[in-house]
Parts: sequence; C-alpha cells; structure tokens
Amino acid sequence: MNSSRQSGPLRRVDVGDVGDIALGAALLGTGGGGDPYIGRLLAASAMRQCGPVDIVAPEDLADDAFVACAAMMGAPTVIVEKLPTLAVLDAALDGLEQRQGRAVTALLPAEMGGINSLMPLALAARRRLPLVDADGMGRAFPELQMVTFNLAGHGASPLVMAADTGERVVIEAATSAGVENLARSAIVALGGSAAITCYSMSGAAARACVVAGTLTCARAFGRAIREGRSSGDPLALLLRSLSQTPHYAHHAVLARGKVRDLSRRIEGGFTQGRCVVQGAAGGCAIEFRNEYLVAESSAGATLCSVPDLIAVLDEDSAEPLTTDQLKYGQRVIVLGMSAPAALRTPAALEVMGPAAFGFRHPFVPLERLHPHA
Amino acid sequence: MNSSRQSGPLRRVDVGDVGDIALGAALLGTGGGGDPYIGRLLAASAMRQCGPVDIVAPEDLADDAFVACAAMMGAPTVIVEKLPTLAVLDAALDGLEQRQGRAVTALLPAEMGGINSLMPLALAARRRLPLVDADGMGRAFPELQMVTFNLAGHGASPLVMAADTGERVVIEAATSAGVENLARSAIVALGGSAAITCYSMSGAAARACVVAGTLTCARAFGRAIREGRSSGDPLALLLRSLSQTPHYAHHAVLARGKVRDLSRRIEGGFTQGRCVVQGAAGGCAIEFRNEYLVAESSAGATLCSVPDLIAVLDEDSAEPLTTDQLKYGQRVIVLGMSAPAALRTPAALEVMGPAAFGFRHPFVPLERLHPHA
Repeated sequence: MNSSRQSGPLRRVDVGDVGDIALGAALLGTGGGGDPYIGRLLAASAMRQCGPVDIVAPEDLADDAFVACAAMMGAPTVIVEKLPTLAVLDAALDGLEQRQGRAVTALLPAEMGGINSLMPLALAARRRLPLVDADGMGRAFPELQMVTFNLAGHGASPLVMAADTGERVVIEAATSAGVENLARSAIVALGGSAAITCYSMSGAAARACVVAGTLTCARAFGRAIREGRSSGDPLALLLRSLSQTPHYAHHAVLARGKVRDLSRRIEGGFTQGRCVVQGAAGGCAIEFRNEYLVAESSAGATLCSVPDLIAVLDEDSAEPLTTDQLKYGQRVIVLGMSAPAALRTPAALEVMGPAAFGFRHPFVPLERLHPHA
Repeated sequence: MNSSRQSGPLRRVDVGDVGDIALGAALLGTGGGGDPYIGRLLAASAMRQCGPVDIVAPEDLADDAFVACAAMMGAPTVIVEKLPTLAVLDAALDGLEQRQGRAVTALLPAEMGGINSLMPLALAARRRLPLVDADGMGRAFPELQMVTFNLAGHGASPLVMAADTGERVVIEAATSAGVENLARSAIVALGGSAAITCYSMSGAAARACVVAGTLTCARAFGRAIREGRSSGDPLALLLRSLSQTPHYAHHAVLARGKVRDLSRRIEGGFTQGRCVVQGAAGGCAIEFRNEYLVAESSAGATLCSVPDLIAVLDEDSAEPLTTDQLKYGQRVIVLGMSAPAALRTPAALEVMGPAAFGFRHPFVPLERLHPHA
C-alpha cells in the first residue's frame, strides 16, 4: 500500500509521498528555503536506492535518542544553481558524529519549508535513519538561530559544515546567533552554499521543544493542492486542509492580482527584495529576505507579518512560488497563514518577529488582522 | 647564569632573553607579523609565572614527537589594538589536541618574525612544553600556506581558531591555501584577529622540513642591535651578526634617507601599501602587504624582492619598524637580507615568490642584485 493513502500522522515515507511533501514544503517555505524540486529529486533517488524512511512522532523519541538537524545553508538562488549532493550532507553528518563522539539515531528537520524539508528525508534514506515528524519552526526562516530549539536553550553549536570541494568547518560559539555569524561568512568563502549539521540534542530535549507534526502537515497540504487540481479548485482544498491542522488553522487571502513591481538582489548571502501585487479589489506589497516577511496594503496597513506565513500561489494551479520564481505580470494569490503558537510567544518574537528583521511595527496575529477570514 | 650569555644554539629561554628575541623577531618580521612588543609582554609574564622554556633543536626531535604551530592570525593593525591573551592561544591548542586525539609534545613557531615568534614562546611557558628552535620560513609571511611545512606536503589542516569572545572554529581543507581562504573569512567575522593552531605533525616530519635555528638567530640579531646601541653603531654589529648565520649571510643597505611618501590601508584583513624613502644617494620605493615585499630604485630597478627579506630600521637606533610604525619624515635605513635557501627553490618561489604576491618580475637573489655588498 502506498503510504500516501494514510490520512493520520505519517509513519513511513516512500517515493510516492515525496511529491506531495515537496509541494507542501514549498507552501510552508513562504517563498524561501530554496526550491524543493532539487530536494525532491535527491530524496526520491535515495529512497529508490535505500528504501522508505521510517517516521517517528516526537512524543515517541526515547530520552536517550540522539537527534540532529541536517540542511543546506546559503542563498536559495545559489543552492539552486550549485546543485547539492547527498555526499556533502553525508560528510557533514560524519563530521558531527566525530565531533560529538556519538552516532545520530534520528534526523530532525530544522525547517519544514523549501529544500530543507527534503534534504533530511534524503539523508535519512541514505543513512537508514528514522526522521522525526517535526521541525524547529513549521515554516522556513533565513537564519540559524530562528528555531524553537534555540528558544529552549539548545544551541546550534557545534555546527559542522561540508562543501562539495571537500572543505569541512566546525563552528562552536556560545550563542546560535554567533554560530550563524561565523557560518554565514564561511558560506560566502565556500562559494555561497554548503551542507550543515547542527542542533544535536537528546530525544528528551527534542521532544520538549520541536514544532510537532509538520511533516504530516506538509504532506497533507501538498496532497490537497494536487487533488484540488484534479477537481478544479486547488485553493479551496488547500484552505480546508489548513483549517484541519493545529498550527495553521487561521488563514486569509490577502490579495489576488498581477505582479506589478518586483525588485530582487543577492546581498550578504541572502535573496532580498520587494514585490507588489495589484488586483481589482486592491493591492499588496510584500517584503522578502529569502522568505516573504511582511505584506502591506496599498494604504500601508499591515496585512500579515512574520512569524505568520505568507505564500504567493499561482492563481490557476495554486503552485507556491519562491521569490526567485516571481515574474512580472504573473497572476497570483497572496495567502496569509497563522504561525505555530511556539513562534508567537514574546521570547520567540524577539528572535523571529518583525523586529528581528528590522521592521518597526509590532506583531499582530493574522486572526486579529482578519477577524472575518 | 642568565641564558642570554650563551653564544651557541639556544637551549633554554628565560625572561632575560625575551627582549633580545623580540628585537630580532622584529627585524625578521620584515615590517609585518605584528609588533612583537605585545608578544614580549605575554612571554615574559608567562615565564615569570611558569619558569623558563626548554628549547629543542629540530635534529633532537624524536620521530614520534607531536608538534604543532600556535599563532595569532589577522591584520597586524588589528592584533595590536585588540590585545591577544594567553587564554585564547590555550583554547586553540586545547581544540587541536581534542580534534587530533593526542597531546602536543612540543610547540613549533610558524614564523620567526613579529609577534608570532613570541606567542609560541609564551604558550610553551604556560603549558610547560619545549619549543623547537626553528620555524617554517625564517621570517614573516602573510598567508598560512607560505611555510616550508606546506612545501613538504604537510597541510595546515586541521586548523583550530579561537576568539576572545569564546567562539572556536575548526577548518579542514585539502590544501593549505584552502584553509587560508576559510580561516581569513572567519577572522573577519571574528572581528579581525584570533588565535590559531595548525600544522600538527610528527617529530620526524618536522625535522625534515623546518628552517632550523631561527630562534637562535632572532636572539643573536636582537642582542647585536642592543649591544650595538651601547657601543654607538648598532647597524655594524647587526650586519656582522647576520654574516655569521647560515640563513641571512648576504645583506645590503638598499637606501638611507627620509620617508617621503606613505600610503597604507587595511583591505581583506591585510595591511597594504607603499612607502618611498628618499636620501642623498638615491631613493627606494617599498611595496608591502603586512610585510615589506619588494624594494625598487627610483629608476624602477628591483633592489630586493620577496622571499628575500627587507627591513626598515630607524637610522639612529636600528630599531626595526613595522609598516604600522612608519611615519612621514622619519630617517631610516632600508636593509635587504638573503632568505633561507629553502625559500628560494622553484617550488618555494611559486608559493612565496614575487608571483605569489602578484608581482611580475622574476626572483633574483639579493647577492646577484648587489654582488659587491
């Protein structure tokens, strides 16, 4: 039986599930996190070679399990051009196990958005390790410290970085922001992207701080979009699927229209810019830094703000578009979704709220901005 | 008996020797390598606390000894302003020993020039380790791969970097130039300077590739300048002392006069620039990148070129001046010295000859440029 027919939490992921997970991960990538297409190819290839991946619910992690995150780091624009390989993720995991003197017993996605939802799946297949149905944000974020693990006091250090040219860098710092700072400069020296492993911790620690069930969510959202395409209304099925989850129950269509203005640049290892969508019923401007961060109305009112999620979907297919895929004149739907509760606490907002990205407005939850959505 | 009264190879270094070694190291620093003054304070303080340091001749290293280099890395201008500490060198050595799973049995200076001649001495005192009377160049150079160890096939990898803010970075790369590239970007992220340990190797390996006796040379040159100041002609005593060494036997006064032009900037972690010395008997322009690299006559003829050594001395005291200490109007002597033979082979010239610094002229040994000096 194809495991994609399951309707409850995922217990196993096979080749047949990868497409839906990638599609759902693109939605939760909120424009960033890198195009999941490449991760999808790598995960499918690893599973064809090594078989399906066992999925473990965070509550089922043993206290003495040893979990770690594996991901690609760098500007999405670069990751897509300089194709990542499983060998380089493998090398980063080897390095972490050597440094910690201990074998990893399960992999944990750091972000359930974009390419980094698929890379841990691919590596789990290759290493025949279980994958935890959870992540550190329930979306994608551009910086290492922006995860619930860090908020709970589990640092990114030691971080191991491996490059396709054979270099390996181990970074230790007292704070995850310090690790981010050093890792970002190493990434630039390594040509813009590299594989990393970090946030290694016990099963007990992970259980207490992850955003649970997000792999299951990604698969459900991807499936809703896919099935909706057959029935002719992918947005309707997606919105229904969102309503059924604990994390993303609130949502609102922020704008429908054409991409009218678009500026995009790569700076400091990030893809940054602004996009304006103009429709008959009004317009919306979106600021992005790898991910879509803030959407404002033409009159300057905040429509949705980080850590809540903003997705830009192709109007016909509901395909989630990354900031790299935006094109002038494209007909799109801008969708706002509530973030998992763990991202909205005062402590979380300091690390991943509007101010952490240089915006001055206070965070207002989506459901208060759109009470009738 | 003060060990500074010894006239043969050094066997022990005590507080009383540190001043002479620092003065000689400033000469061999050829303008770079960082002002040895700070290293002198650290070494003296460590020896007052922990006692003198045993010096081991490279030929006396056991095959299974385990040696490593410890140094400060960064723009000299920054190192002097952001004072290095012994604690940070200690942390870098701890990190290397952890990474290599083995205790270091002797420290090896990487460069016998500037502050990094004194830092291994200070760390050797603190850790009660012997110090090898040798280095990897018999001078100072700005980049990690510019050592005889690398020429002999012993890589800088793994390199451990420690910062006073607690960060630690381990870098592994196939080539020492690759390590340099990553380390330089990390240095910038760490604020411009950090302690490093690298080039760990066996006693047998070190014995076969070091430039031997350079700590003894530094002490002898420093003593000559100091004693010459009492007798009124420090330059004469220094030149006599140079003539008595295997490595620096050829030398020539390239110019005497005033500093007339001086441009200096910090770029990419290096102190770079150009200085023109004008005297009655002609002028001389010196290009530098941390170290003085090439001296040319006013007519554009090469007077001395890297890897041969160029020192700029205060005319009265023969105090060697770093590129940071140069001042407009200063009266100076520009001195050229032959480099150790290991730096002049075709393979060495590729890594540390004029072309490695972007100069187009071929290397011509000092004694051929100045046959009657």
